[in-house]
Amino acid sequence: MEKIYHLLYPMRVVLISARDGGKESIMPAAWCFPLSFDPPMFGVAIAKKRFTYSLIHKSKAFAINLASPDMRGGVALCGSKSGKDTDKFAATGWKREEGKRTVMIADAPASIECEVEREMETGDHVVFIGKAINVVRRREAKGLYHTGGTEFVEI
Amino acid sequence: MEKIYHLLYPMRVVLISARDGGKESIMPAAWCFPLSFDPPMFGVAIAKKRFTYSLIHKSKAFAINLASPDMRGGVALCGSKSGKDTDKFAATGWKREEGKRTVMIADAPASIECEVEREMETGDHVVFIGKAINVVRRREAKGLYHTGGTEFVEI
Repeated sequence: MEKIYHLLYPMRVVLISARDGGKESIMPAAWCFPLSFDPPMFGVAIAKKRFTYSLIHKSKAFAINLASPDMRGGVALCGSKSGKDTDKFAATGWKREEGKRTVMIADAPASIECEVEREMETGDHVVFIGKAINVVRRREAKGLYHTGGTEFVEI
Repeated sequence: MEKIYHLLYPMRVVLISARDGGKESIMPAAWCFPLSFDPPMFGVAIAKKRFTYSLIHKSKAFAINLASPDMRGGVALCGSKSGKDTDKFAATGWKREEGKRTVMIADAPASIECEVEREMETGDHVVFIGKAINVVRRREAKGLYHTGGTEFVEI
């Protein structure tokens, strides 16, 4: 299968964090995008088999956490292990920050907490469409942009 | 209103082309993203007041055309004029290329033609979700990434 979507790369990688009951996880996602200016809304497309999918599906909330170049090792780790059997916060060493509805990553330059308004299947992914209910800006930093495979550029 | 979406910038700018009957237009969009690997699907969020919105709404097709640095002047022009009273192809000097369902920009490094499967309101935008039915790769080129206002970086 030809990777047509690569035509739009490099794309910024963010870290999606979510929690349901006592379970939580973090996954890197490049398919995350604004959908409205006012009210502020965002979408993220996630494969249904992902552990993070089930957490967002059940809790109806997720956080978009920016990834800075110094977080690159953790991004790779979060992308290669499942939250089913790995505590992503312990494995990366990142700290939790409690949001209004879900867990955020305190090490991220900024986090946008979203409440899910709609969930929709699009081919082999599911798109969660959420309204921003909380924004935390912690520091200025370059972003990590995915160029394909395990390659990133800093922008 | 705080521009929360700027946290995800810079974002790649593409040129969305569309035609309905004898009317056609081109608009720059940064909120354009992959939504499925197989089948290949893409989304684009457009403000409802845009002339291009009505063309896609009626014709159920659009093309995503990559914008290269040499097309920057045309990108600015397409973003500042409405297709209601401006012939964007004539004004930019870009050439038309006929696709399977709509018009593409022959000067773009690549174009992805999409057939609309769903249209959905998200706050102050409408998202068109389309399946790729045609891909044309013409040349390798850097992309234009929007950093805000009229500013772009080449990546």
